[in-house]
Amino acid sequence: MGEFELIESFFWRRPGQGPRRAVVGNGDDCAVIAPAPGMQLAVSTDTLVEGRHFLSTVDPRRLGHKALAVNLSDLAACGAQPLAFTLALTLPRVDATWLQAFAQGLLDLADEHECELIGGDTTAGPLAIGITVMGEVPVGQTLLRSGARAGDDIWVSGFPGEARLALEAFRGTLHPGLSGDAFDATRLAMEAPDPRVALGVGLRGVASAAVDVSDGLLGDLGHVLRRSGVGAMLALDTLPLSPWLAARPRAEQLDCILAGGDDYELVFTAPPARREAVAALGDTLGLVLSRIGRIEAEPGVRLHVSGLDGEGDATPVPNRWASFDHFRG
Amino acid sequence: MGEFELIESFFWRRPGQGPRRAVVGNGDDCAVIAPAPGMQLAVSTDTLVEGRHFLSTVDPRRLGHKALAVNLSDLAACGAQPLAFTLALTLPRVDATWLQAFAQGLLDLADEHECELIGGDTTAGPLAIGITVMGEVPVGQTLLRSGARAGDDIWVSGFPGEARLALEAFRGTLHPGLSGDAFDATRLAMEAPDPRVALGVGLRGVASAAVDVSDGLLGDLGHVLRRSGVGAMLALDTLPLSPWLAARPRAEQLDCILAGGDDYELVFTAPPARREAVAALGDTLGLVLSRIGRIEAEPGVRLHVSGLDGEGDATPVPNRWASFDHFRG
Repeated sequence: MGEFELIESFFWRRPGQGPRRAVVGNGDDCAVIAPAPGMQLAVSTDTLVEGRHFLSTVDPRRLGHKALAVNLSDLAACGAQPLAFTLALTLPRVDATWLQAFAQGLLDLADEHECELIGGDTTAGPLAIGITVMGEVPVGQTLLRSGARAGDDIWVSGFPGEARLALEAFRGTLHPGLSGDAFDATRLAMEAPDPRVALGVGLRGVASAAVDVSDGLLGDLGHVLRRSGVGAMLALDTLPLSPWLAARPRAEQLDCILAGGDDYELVFTAPPARREAVAALGDTLGLVLSRIGRIEAEPGVRLHVSGLDGEGDATPVPNRWASFDHFRG
Repeated sequence: MGEFELIESFFWRRPGQGPRRAVVGNGDDCAVIAPAPGMQLAVSTDTLVEGRHFLSTVDPRRLGHKALAVNLSDLAACGAQPLAFTLALTLPRVDATWLQAFAQGLLDLADEHECELIGGDTTAGPLAIGITVMGEVPVGQTLLRSGARAGDDIWVSGFPGEARLALEAFRGTLHPGLSGDAFDATRLAMEAPDPRVALGVGLRGVASAAVDVSDGLLGDLGHVLRRSGVGAMLALDTLPLSPWLAARPRAEQLDCILAGGDDYELVFTAPPARREAVAALGDTLGLVLSRIGRIEAEPGVRLHVSGLDGEGDATPVPNRWASFDHFRG
């Protein structure tokens, strides 16, 4: 079996599967897809580069999962249901064991979300994974960054900060270090994030704005604030803490949660009248949804040590929590 | 101006331009596009890696053009009209002069085809350009590789082989070498191919199958033959020769035309009853369309030295014309 045939066998020639969601599947010059009537197509693209977005020692199965997860997370932030994706794989060599595990992690997550691999190519070069994902969203119901209004609540899903905690453990900067359990759990959060697709779909018509946390909660919330022309207050005592984060020093907790990034949780805003709807959605999905602040008319972000009603001390956002920049960071 | 702002200024913040073809443009988690009623979406993706698909000395404006052109060529081969594309750029450094020229080459071609840049990302790493392109095609009118039938004519657009001639000139393998004019002209064909979008759209309802010549005429025609379950005869004397190729030794001509690749011309099949329609399309587009062979029921490719009616000698396809393989070649 030649190298290309080997690659094709992992990604394209899966037993018993012709095109499922595509009109024309992989193998022609283009794949052809058709959004359902009344649906528009949401499109996003993200590339993961070795040494920049993942460590060379990562389990290839987790890497396959994560490469698609970070793209599905963008669909989630728009309230789109996954439909299909393309894969551009750059490989330094053809390693069958590695490829099989990578493909399994990638395609297991794709199957879970019924997101069909419809095209792509493989080239020789430094390891990089480029994915473009397409999803469906009903006309006019896309969750945008620009819809937040003064008075809206600010919510976050899950436990942002765990991925950063794991990264710092890898870097050896934590004192004290993590326990074995904490390291395994936070490493899983970093290496195999769970994209909040069902949450995004459930937030259609409920949230006024949404964004996924890829660069850090403060940085990504900042995108919403700028596009919406508003500001925000965040109550630090309301930030959700996983057991692993709860055991860490307070300054480290805040660094990880507010500026960590790589979380792929959703930050969203909704009018106070929708609090019950948001709570019901969290119950249905078995997902912790925390109300962490409020949209205000005045631009900028103000951090309150405690109290969603703003009775705590307001402090400016420290520079060290500026958003991650791939060319600086 | 920071590095990211610089990149954004070249690609995203063009004067006087909001989203044009997208419902939601770049800057949110996803872009949103909506195919027109009765249209399906054709999707293709191609990555260009430095040292593998282009030389490090290439003019960045031509590189920008080519990165999109090879993707538009896939749309052309399906008869799709370009709609939008995403760009995943991996850059070893931020060089404003280089980026500005690259963006201009890319966006000039995008504007020419009304193909909107709707998303993407930039990461630090070895130079690579990943593009996923989306186009519209009327329901059921996609040109496929699988539609060729025994008795159909085989056609090719333009002058395949020029890109390979230029590549061999760069490699220093040509004896005699190319004149300055020939080098400039064939280098332009290699570095800035013209995707046959209008031809692809015009071939809807005319061609029975189509493919673009990226890996070599014989190799790409082979995809059509396998998918259609047919074979072909090609008449070597009918292969079109540009002035630059016409001046070369015959063996070199055939190597370049049949196995050169990187041409981005279309090879297509059509019933003999559509010869006038094909000729009229060539006239309308000002594009040379050459009838070079015929689809036959018997699998495999037979080369005839002369004569479309097969009166010449039939020879098997030499091994040296096997298709280019990125992991072997």
